[in-house]
Amino acid sequence: MRAILCLYEGVASGAADGYARMEDKPALTLLHLGPGFANASSNLHNARRAHSAVVNMIGDHATYHLQYDAPLTADIEGFAKPVSAWVGVSTSADTLAETGLTAWANSLGYPGQVASFIAPANHAWDTCDTIAPVPQIPSAPIASETEIDRAIAALSNDEPKAIMLGARALREDALLLAGKIAARTGAKLVTETFCARHQRGAGRVPVDRLPYFGEQAAEHLASFKHIVFVGTRPPVSFFAYPEKPSWLSPEGANLVQVANAKIDVLDALTRLITGLDAAAEEVTLQPRCHYDLDDGPLTALELGKVIANRLPKHAIVSDEGATNGLGAFLMTAGSEPHDWLMLTGGSIGQGLPVAIGAAVARPHQKVIALQADGSAMYTVQSLWTMARENLDITVLLLNNSSYAILNIELERVGVLNPGPTAKSLLDLSNPTIDWCHIARGMGVSASRATTVEELDQAFEAAMLERGPRLIEAIL
Amino acid sequence: MRAILCLYEGVASGAADGYARMEDKPALTLLHLGPGFANASSNLHNARRAHSAVVNMIGDHATYHLQYDAPLTADIEGFAKPVSAWVGVSTSADTLAETGLTAWANSLGYPGQVASFIAPANHAWDTCDTIAPVPQIPSAPIASETEIDRAIAALSNDEPKAIMLGARALREDALLLAGKIAARTGAKLVTETFCARHQRGAGRVPVDRLPYFGEQAAEHLASFKHIVFVGTRPPVSFFAYPEKPSWLSPEGANLVQVANAKIDVLDALTRLITGLDAAAEEVTLQPRCHYDLDDGPLTALELGKVIANRLPKHAIVSDEGATNGLGAFLMTAGSEPHDWLMLTGGSIGQGLPVAIGAAVARPHQKVIALQADGSAMYTVQSLWTMARENLDITVLLLNNSSYAILNIELERVGVLNPGPTAKSLLDLSNPTIDWCHIARGMGVSASRATTVEELDQAFEAAMLERGPRLIEAIL
Repeated sequence: MRAILCLYEGVASGAADGYARMEDKPALTLLHLGPGFANASSNLHNARRAHSAVVNMIGDHATYHLQYDAPLTADIEGFAKPVSAWVGVSTSADTLAETGLTAWANSLGYPGQVASFIAPANHAWDTCDTIAPVPQIPSAPIASETEIDRAIAALSNDEPKAIMLGARALREDALLLAGKIAARTGAKLVTETFCARHQRGAGRVPVDRLPYFGEQAAEHLASFKHIVFVGTRPPVSFFAYPEKPSWLSPEGANLVQVANAKIDVLDALTRLITGLDAAAEEVTLQPRCHYDLDDGPLTALELGKVIANRLPKHAIVSDEGATNGLGAFLMTAGSEPHDWLMLTGGSIGQGLPVAIGAAVARPHQKVIALQADGSAMYTVQSLWTMARENLDITVLLLNNSSYAILNIELERVGVLNPGPTAKSLLDLSNPTIDWCHIARGMGVSASRATTVEELDQAFEAAMLERGPRLIEAIL
Repeated sequence: MRAILCLYEGVASGAADGYARMEDKPALTLLHLGPGFANASSNLHNARRAHSAVVNMIGDHATYHLQYDAPLTADIEGFAKPVSAWVGVSTSADTLAETGLTAWANSLGYPGQVASFIAPANHAWDTCDTIAPVPQIPSAPIASETEIDRAIAALSNDEPKAIMLGARALREDALLLAGKIAARTGAKLVTETFCARHQRGAGRVPVDRLPYFGEQAAEHLASFKHIVFVGTRPPVSFFAYPEKPSWLSPEGANLVQVANAKIDVLDALTRLITGLDAAAEEVTLQPRCHYDLDDGPLTALELGKVIANRLPKHAIVSDEGATNGLGAFLMTAGSEPHDWLMLTGGSIGQGLPVAIGAAVARPHQKVIALQADGSAMYTVQSLWTMARENLDITVLLLNNSSYAILNIELERVGVLNPGPTAKSLLDLSNPTIDWCHIARGMGVSASRATTVEELDQAFEAAMLERGPRLIEAIL
């Protein structure tokens, strides 16, 4: 077993999420009592939303010590339930291994789940004679015949239609199947806004991403009379706002939920292909694109072009770029084929830990952490683990000295003239955070780019070398 | 209202704890949905163990949006319950203020509690016509006549006896009363190992601190035939270990639980004084001590002497010094009078946030954060808020590049020859963390001390100036 030390539990749980996204099997987090689990839980919330397989082993006091309510005693199950699909408690040294293996099997419930088990200290130090049986991994449920038939009918219709894809349906193999269906039926392929792992780039089937803001997303879908969902559910807005829609599908449209994230998407797509006789269709693939760079100060779009031009084949991008990340996503549609990992549960502080897990899973693929400054501070301890494990991660730290997205959200809930106190709470410029200093403090080499040319040079160098580094992009 | 931005929720909740320890009234944390609360909850666990008054306002989705299970939707009440004495949910714009005020009143349940309330977004933006009544603050329950009589009998006995003090009984006024009782009866004054706030130093009533390790604590108490508890319960060991005691009071001793932390300690002590006719007793007060410093490399003891000599009057020490903090505690017994705040719930990452809250509460008192390196990383974002608010905090960062306490704990559970993997997980030296770089990255000036003389000079300068700074003490 490879043991990786993280200097905060939220780093460990986010790294386990990143590992699972790349490997479709769990990493184990080792957490310490209720508060240790609590520290891990916001990134477990993200992992839950990503349908990632994660096993949490939570050390507890010796069972006979619990009655004394020592300082670290807490309601561990209470902490664990909101983010876990399964919670188990070992009842003796003899059942500890079985409890852990049951957690492991549960974590592999398709396409992946968060499973947590509590390991009292005395079950680790008491003797044990039992060899626990390895439990069966549950097989993935498949779509019902009725829904498959409804989807075939919808997709055979001449009216405007879309296939909305999520979870495992955004892997290269599933996308190829979806591409054949699109070619056959004229359906548009769309993804949810935030995906756990999207395999994209040149030579892959391109898919439209649903915009973040609800009213734009609703407009994006407005023309469709039929929407077939594979690996996801009908989309809803990220937040509610006064006078803006929560439910984003067009009124009166025929919504066919063939398979949510927890239903075997490859099976569903294969059956749709059979039903639609689409196996021989030629698929439109994304061409490779290059961009000319503008001179001058960095913008989100120019930053995106730099990444797009230089992203190596099979790179993995952990995107917590927030307001400045969208340009990179848009520009890289025609980059070398790569994996794009996003913030699935909205709880910031995911990006750097997920990059760690992805780099551990795939030591031969370059990992780029596209990371907004405000979110980066949440799990800044990640940099140390990147250095310690010498992970091949380039952190592109997008420094705009602001929680910029919150300025937008504030306006959207109707606060058009926030006072100076409210505004100051979204401002990170006093003091300005020096990310190069912070990175060096944790053993990661760092440089700063304020112009497109500087970024291009620094990013080129980073892509050619191996090991962790941080480029602070001033936006 | 003074709004203070923290770059992680755990900083905010720990700061609220520190504020409450100094002011005996709550600060408000503003947290964002379930995951935002989860990030705050380990320091809320500590606040709960400190009996601190904290009010958490947790923003939730608009009520009508919850049905859609948007990405950030989570079981907020589930997250909140394990660390909150009271949880409320606003049911409309008209009840939001009442819900918040009820949380406020609950937080003031003696001596202080964590109270959390959920504020759906639409209750903030919908109109409201109601003016909420200010609720009554609950009065502190008082000790029963029976227990007072039992305590008087125990303390009037000639056999060896102790008064064990905790919570509010460690404030100067209560200690003066306890000192009179000790003078009258010959009872020894003892504190629990980890106290929320202990007022100590020259001119105050000295109290013995119970050792951390259970077997030493048990030995410390072994000779007593009667123990009277005021502001605390009979002590238990922090962890359980094979073959070591969990319950630390001597077998067969007469344990009189006059008042736990939630019962008015001043009332109890006053009634004991009356019953024992101790009002006129002369109290032994702690004399001022100075230490000669040794030359050479820093040790925990020499570091303690430096602090002891130079601690300004009414300083506040936030102690998360772990293995290297004990020397400072022992040496400062005879320093200028000061407040000592400790890690109450065992969840590391408390020290820097508590220092923030104490400094906000007491802008004219110097705050010293005595901070171990491993724990400091947990809430390292605290440094930025110290800079932003220009708080008068000197962080003494105790850098031993190790989770040193865990080496000891590992041995104590019987792992006498840990393998290289296990050992590596307790080692922070690869890479070495450069705390001066990290501090500068967050806008805090920093220096390094490797010898006693260097530390003494740096600490002297820090005590004479105002504002945040970090001294990295290499141990």
